[in-house]
Amino acid sequence: MNENENENKKLLDVALGRMPGDLAIVNARLLNVYTGEILDNQSVCTCGERIACAGPDVGYVIGDGTTVIDAGGATLIPGFIDGHAHVAASFTAGEFVKYAARGGTTTIVTETMEPYAVAGINGVLDFLASLKDQPIKFFATAPAMVSTSRAAMGIDPTDLETLLGQEEIVGLGESYWQAVLQNPDVFLPIFAATTAHGKLLEGHSAGARGNKLQAYAACGVSSCHEPIKAEEVLDRLRLGIYVMIREGSIRRDLAEIAGIKDMVADTRRLILTTDGVSPADLMAMGYMEYLVQKAIDCGFDPVTAVQMATLNVAEHFGLDDRIGGIAPGKTADLVLIPDPQTIRAMVVVSRGRIIARDGKLEEAPRKHAFAAESLNTIRIPKTVEPSDFGLAYTGDGDTAACRVIEMVTDLVTREVRLDLPVTDGEIKTDRANDLVKIAAIDRATVPGKCFTGLIKGFGMRSGAMACSAAWDTSCVIVVGADETDMALCVNRIRDMQGGVVVCDAGRVAAELAMPVFGLISELPLEELVVRLKTIQQAAADLGVSFPDPLLTLIALTGAAIPFLRICEEGLVNFKDGRTVDLMID
Amino acid sequence: MNENENENKKLLDVALGRMPGDLAIVNARLLNVYTGEILDNQSVCTCGERIACAGPDVGYVIGDGTTVIDAGGATLIPGFIDGHAHVAASFTAGEFVKYAARGGTTTIVTETMEPYAVAGINGVLDFLASLKDQPIKFFATAPAMVSTSRAAMGIDPTDLETLLGQEEIVGLGESYWQAVLQNPDVFLPIFAATTAHGKLLEGHSAGARGNKLQAYAACGVSSCHEPIKAEEVLDRLRLGIYVMIREGSIRRDLAEIAGIKDMVADTRRLILTTDGVSPADLMAMGYMEYLVQKAIDCGFDPVTAVQMATLNVAEHFGLDDRIGGIAPGKTADLVLIPDPQTIRAMVVVSRGRIIARDGKLEEAPRKHAFAAESLNTIRIPKTVEPSDFGLAYTGDGDTAACRVIEMVTDLVTREVRLDLPVTDGEIKTDRANDLVKIAAIDRATVPGKCFTGLIKGFGMRSGAMACSAAWDTSCVIVVGADETDMALCVNRIRDMQGGVVVCDAGRVAAELAMPVFGLISELPLEELVVRLKTIQQAAADLGVSFPDPLLTLIALTGAAIPFLRICEEGLVNFKDGRTVDLMID
Repeated sequence: MNENENENKKLLDVALGRMPGDLAIVNARLLNVYTGEILDNQSVCTCGERIACAGPDVGYVIGDGTTVIDAGGATLIPGFIDGHAHVAASFTAGEFVKYAARGGTTTIVTETMEPYAVAGINGVLDFLASLKDQPIKFFATAPAMVSTSRAAMGIDPTDLETLLGQEEIVGLGESYWQAVLQNPDVFLPIFAATTAHGKLLEGHSAGARGNKLQAYAACGVSSCHEPIKAEEVLDRLRLGIYVMIREGSIRRDLAEIAGIKDMVADTRRLILTTDGVSPADLMAMGYMEYLVQKAIDCGFDPVTAVQMATLNVAEHFGLDDRIGGIAPGKTADLVLIPDPQTIRAMVVVSRGRIIARDGKLEEAPRKHAFAAESLNTIRIPKTVEPSDFGLAYTGDGDTAACRVIEMVTDLVTREVRLDLPVTDGEIKTDRANDLVKIAAIDRATVPGKCFTGLIKGFGMRSGAMACSAAWDTSCVIVVGADETDMALCVNRIRDMQGGVVVCDAGRVAAELAMPVFGLISELPLEELVVRLKTIQQAAADLGVSFPDPLLTLIALTGAAIPFLRICEEGLVNFKDGRTVDLMID
Repeated sequence: MNENENENKKLLDVALGRMPGDLAIVNARLLNVYTGEILDNQSVCTCGERIACAGPDVGYVIGDGTTVIDAGGATLIPGFIDGHAHVAASFTAGEFVKYAARGGTTTIVTETMEPYAVAGINGVLDFLASLKDQPIKFFATAPAMVSTSRAAMGIDPTDLETLLGQEEIVGLGESYWQAVLQNPDVFLPIFAATTAHGKLLEGHSAGARGNKLQAYAACGVSSCHEPIKAEEVLDRLRLGIYVMIREGSIRRDLAEIAGIKDMVADTRRLILTTDGVSPADLMAMGYMEYLVQKAIDCGFDPVTAVQMATLNVAEHFGLDDRIGGIAPGKTADLVLIPDPQTIRAMVVVSRGRIIARDGKLEEAPRKHAFAAESLNTIRIPKTVEPSDFGLAYTGDGDTAACRVIEMVTDLVTREVRLDLPVTDGEIKTDRANDLVKIAAIDRATVPGKCFTGLIKGFGMRSGAMACSAAWDTSCVIVVGADETDMALCVNRIRDMQGGVVVCDAGRVAAELAMPVFGLISELPLEELVVRLKTIQQAAADLGVSFPDPLLTLIALTGAAIPFLRICEEGLVNFKDGRTVDLMID
């Protein structure tokens, strides 16, 4: 017998009462996610990482050496699962775990496009390694790699095979629907390779409707976390798509969407997800427990609310043989809460171990030592000069017809066409009218390749701001009212091997190093939150008044937000996916 | 692009309205199994084997060459799925399809222990080949191979790997709980090998309760089709086990169990299954459509009833990415019924093709040419003699203390201990008191090995009856009031290479050849039903008055029915799994 078989035999022996269990929680109400019942006087007993038995009478497995917790009538629910997270974002998995685990989250499914874009397959494997042997479990999706950059578009088939062969990879990550419909030759083979492994296609169908939504569903996409109205949820559920109701730092849609509960008879395909959380939100609000509580506060039945963060997620990912419910043989992921209406973790058990009690972590996360390759991803070959951001005009006349990115909200942009004055062969910006420069410099795919454009409505009156964590690309993104400050920002990022920098009048006003993939700070979350506030303040001092200037900046390369975006290849028209130049022919 | 990618691209083009679909069903009510809604004015359009779009407006995909069916307000539901069938039983898959398909069943998951026991891995592969390219789809489970015979117990690990590598194998077939708990060293490694492939463990927990049910669940078993009371259903659902409510020829439990609908808030893990049907029942009552109608008649909501035969089954087997619901990208398995309360198939579409209309099959099943090896499985090395069934007594005294199988019902037996007279060194039967001989002769595993015992309460006054389709073993089973007739039965089966034979007074009274694996007749179902009636009449003429004497006979070797069974190795005590002798020491 190998080790697994020994574990299986021990589990059987405990369940049969032939040997005592490890951890028993007795005298609990049990929220049974399978039947939808809330049952009194229930107990659960574990053996190693798994549940040996669960029911009204598990006294027969309690013996010497069994740790017994008397729940005193408190309610036992399964550990929460976040089905769509972005863990490779600004802080390490260890810091993530510190705050996620204590609230009762025991499983997280994360995207991996961020390390892939900047560090390739080795970066993803190192990132996955950082998720292993933590107090809670992580699963991940392989990156579909929708990008504004044609050079970065679509995961390499060999890399995809490597990832699909990993047990913790449960599917292909979000593939934005427009890109899929615009580039079927790129994405249908990626989809087919994924489903050939029996793995899932995570979706992203923001705003899709009618025949476009039908077509995207026909591609085999199985989930969407983008609906912002109950009707959009209904449209997707009817097509068999699991809908992840998003309540996180990017958007908070739960209150608006909650009406769906009265629109369908079956909620098994409804899921709660964060789609990523900011350091400040994670510290202040917690993680999945906040979502479940809010769902209840929005009128969802507590059983349904808990199912949306446990069984439904597990079933979606085909992980319900292991997680998502409290039953013999399943992983012992358990959360004790005061009552079914009050989602506050009193005890959190993960893989049979008590990892948190009364909001305090009892098991420290593991700090991962990233590979040197993962810490050296800003491969811009030479120091950037202010003149690199020049906008030479080679045509006749003294004005140039230009496509300009205009901010509509803090995330949505549109294309405006402006005739701009040309002086000494250079197209001029107009700070007084909030028209400044924006540039994307590739740092990994085609290192050093740079495209400079114009942006209106960013609010920047002086200085510059840059970050190496630009969405969906391997770019450093920089917005600046001054080319010298732009160069200074980018060069400082190059020196730090990643991070965010705000400069003004030729000096650094605020900065944060993000040395892991040029994406992730290794600071403790508490310090990171403070540092991010200094960044925000420094941006505000330049005139940038968005709620989160850094988020606004890094989303400008994003391939999923309308309408005019930027990458190292040029401007990208979201409607048709085409790359276009600054100047209109 | 390969063929699959071409199909995917075509599907996308149809969904987008760039080319016309193949088959459109318009003006239907649609029972949406995902949301639990019944929606009016819906349409569905296919492309090849799949659904391209489904919703209120699919007119944009109808063009020249699109076949259009106006549903006239009739109700469209997904094709039915039977999750636990025994297709390798008395008639061919082709004959099965004839009757299953016309009622709206488009997918069947079948066990394979029957061919494995008698023809090994090659037998299973030939059986699986017989299921391919039929008008409906088949999936299968690998045999766990619980047997009364120790020689046959447990599937060979290499054979298991071969089968788990097949796409149509969705898991491990039913493993009776007593055997698993009695032989963990045999079955836990088989379970581990199966789950390592990400495949399911089908269960069989008849009568299990308390710590034994907990222990069986802890082994990772994911389903049970054996509950006979609503409380047993509830016990299993609470442990996360999918419960298949059985309504077939072996047992009919639906009416008794239907009360479960009022006991749980969530029915997603309830499934309807036949667990096999007899030729006569299949012809007279139909297949899954009968179960769904009966569920409705028993008070289940029509949406729930349909979910129990479609989406819930698909989700259990992890096949819901392909089947179980009506949505873009899913296989076009559709059934048009008059209204949600009336489960009568007006049109059946399977993989995009109309295969039946108004109860008439429009696509003929394929007749499979079985391999010679599959047609020569009765490997009893020599002619059987009446003296082979002698019961020599080697002890002292003129009586022998014997374990005797006594019939309690037509399936359940018990052990009785009788002191029987010995004459000329032979233990004597007592026909006047309904005590006759029973023997099991192995025909494949240890060919020719024979064990003879005694049976009480079978009703046989003269002659003998034998069959080569004895459950869970590779035995020919024979019960006889006369050793000459017993030998005649077995020899005739040997000549026919399988079948059932009734003999009386030295001549064959009735017989049916079952040449495929010694299990399956190649007769058309209509003829088979007539022939089986002649067998039943011939058995009745001998005094055997069970409702289905053949079923009673072949179940006597079964490893899942209490309490005293038989195989070529001896008598088997169901309670502890031990093989014991006729004579008590």
